[in-house]
Amino acid sequence: MTRTVYVNGDWFDETNARISIFDRSVMFADSVYEVTSFLDGKFLDFDGHIKRLKNSLKALEIEFNVDRDEFLDIHRELIKRNGLDNGTVYLQVSRGAGDRNFVYDNSELKPCLFMFTQTGIVKNLQKMPQLKMISVKEGRWCRRDIKTTQLLYSSLTKTHAHAEGVDDAVYVEDGYLTEATSSNFFIVDRQGTLVTRQLDHSILPGITRGTILELARKNGINVEERLFTLEETYAASEALITSTTNFAAPVLSVDGRKIGDGKPGKVTLRLRELYIEHVKRS
Amino acid sequence: MTRTVYVNGDWFDETNARISIFDRSVMFADSVYEVTSFLDGKFLDFDGHIKRLKNSLKALEIEFNVDRDEFLDIHRELIKRNGLDNGTVYLQVSRGAGDRNFVYDNSELKPCLFMFTQTGIVKNLQKMPQLKMISVKEGRWCRRDIKTTQLLYSSLTKTHAHAEGVDDAVYVEDGYLTEATSSNFFIVDRQGTLVTRQLDHSILPGITRGTILELARKNGINVEERLFTLEETYAASEALITSTTNFAAPVLSVDGRKIGDGKPGKVTLRLRELYIEHVKRS
Repeated sequence: MTRTVYVNGDWFDETNARISIFDRSVMFADSVYEVTSFLDGKFLDFDGHIKRLKNSLKALEIEFNVDRDEFLDIHRELIKRNGLDNGTVYLQVSRGAGDRNFVYDNSELKPCLFMFTQTGIVKNLQKMPQLKMISVKEGRWCRRDIKTTQLLYSSLTKTHAHAEGVDDAVYVEDGYLTEATSSNFFIVDRQGTLVTRQLDHSILPGITRGTILELARKNGINVEERLFTLEETYAASEALITSTTNFAAPVLSVDGRKIGDGKPGKVTLRLRELYIEHVKRS
Repeated sequence: MTRTVYVNGDWFDETNARISIFDRSVMFADSVYEVTSFLDGKFLDFDGHIKRLKNSLKALEIEFNVDRDEFLDIHRELIKRNGLDNGTVYLQVSRGAGDRNFVYDNSELKPCLFMFTQTGIVKNLQKMPQLKMISVKEGRWCRRDIKTTQLLYSSLTKTHAHAEGVDDAVYVEDGYLTEATSSNFFIVDRQGTLVTRQLDHSILPGITRGTILELARKNGINVEERLFTLEETYAASEALITSTTNFAAPVLSVDGRKIGDGKPGKVTLRLRELYIEHVKRS
């Protein structure tokens, strides 16, 4: 069975969902996106995703009015049409289609919006992911805080990590970790402090990252948002990632070195439990 | 009148030229491109573009067989169908369409190829561009030697440069110039030596760059391929860019500072003349 997807106000069978070759997502990666999870038909942190989408559009000066309620209606209609209870909705907004030109003129462009569903998250719910990772030199562009479709380096890195027999890679820039290819990265130090990089242009302000930090603070887990190194990571008690599709998931090794005892850590498991409780409550 | 464009073996009116939203150019910028000029119906440095396209595809491990003669036939048919003598052909190859996944499997993907014409080059032929530029911090990804569609930073930079009343921007990384948003950058020092950055991962191996260096060497102009700074640029006798659409064109100022006497320089004009002669001969 094929999916029903949404493109600029219309519904299409996924095999017929097309956009112009002149859309600026195609030739300039001039587009932003969000991936929102839904469980039992309810969207997680919907407003957080809408807020970040607006921030991304503003950062790129893409003039597109995001109406929260209208977007929620489309999200709901999309999962209804696909008969899904659990999964994710991917949405993308590009600056629009026009003759190819590095210099854009928003007044001549009409943004393009599409959305579709995926169900890969379901297996992550049934079984907690446990990750082996490698570290790789950071090589993405300078504004990783904007959720753009400039994802080629992340895609290459993750594919190469799989080819090397591990699950994912974490980036290192000027000696400090930034984030993983599509998730935020944390360690728990020997004193039990949860450490993750502070927000700046170098990492995405993950929605799940924010919720996990809030839950940690509320539940008496010490939190530090700061730079940390690969050496600190190798020496940590635990390592974990957070993302929309993985929630919080343990990282068992980095570069072949066991983190802690090489098993899912207590703090990680507690945070995952707190997150799942939070999701069920909200 | 609308253009006729080529998409995956078929010809379309440009308003009907579409690709799947699941094409990896759309969501991952997982695609490479070339822009080839044609003058009086003849393609410039066609084999150079084909060679670079193959290198780009290889670097990204996109498995697509580029048949030089078949590509030339399509290029010729394209300009014939559009009734053009002078212009450029843009061609793009992406890894293909599949459900969104950072990890790609080439065996499940069929590359997507499209081509279309543009005629902006004609005005550059009629009147030599003379550019004012600004310098901007380098912020693109780490593999600028591969001609990918990860062009968002270049597009933003050039648009912002225009908004500031200049024509383009040149990037500076670790104190040294890399290249302009869509062209290679050169200076001519006070001794008359043509200086441009050596080829590495930080800049595109421009086809026109290569031809200009060859023509300079053949015609007794001293050439150095090495790192150079913004201070050297401000103090230079001349500055220039090279690209498929601009050939060689003088840069009159950078960051509001006149380069030399702020007029097109002798070496630049000579190189442009040599290039145009070379084009007419070949």
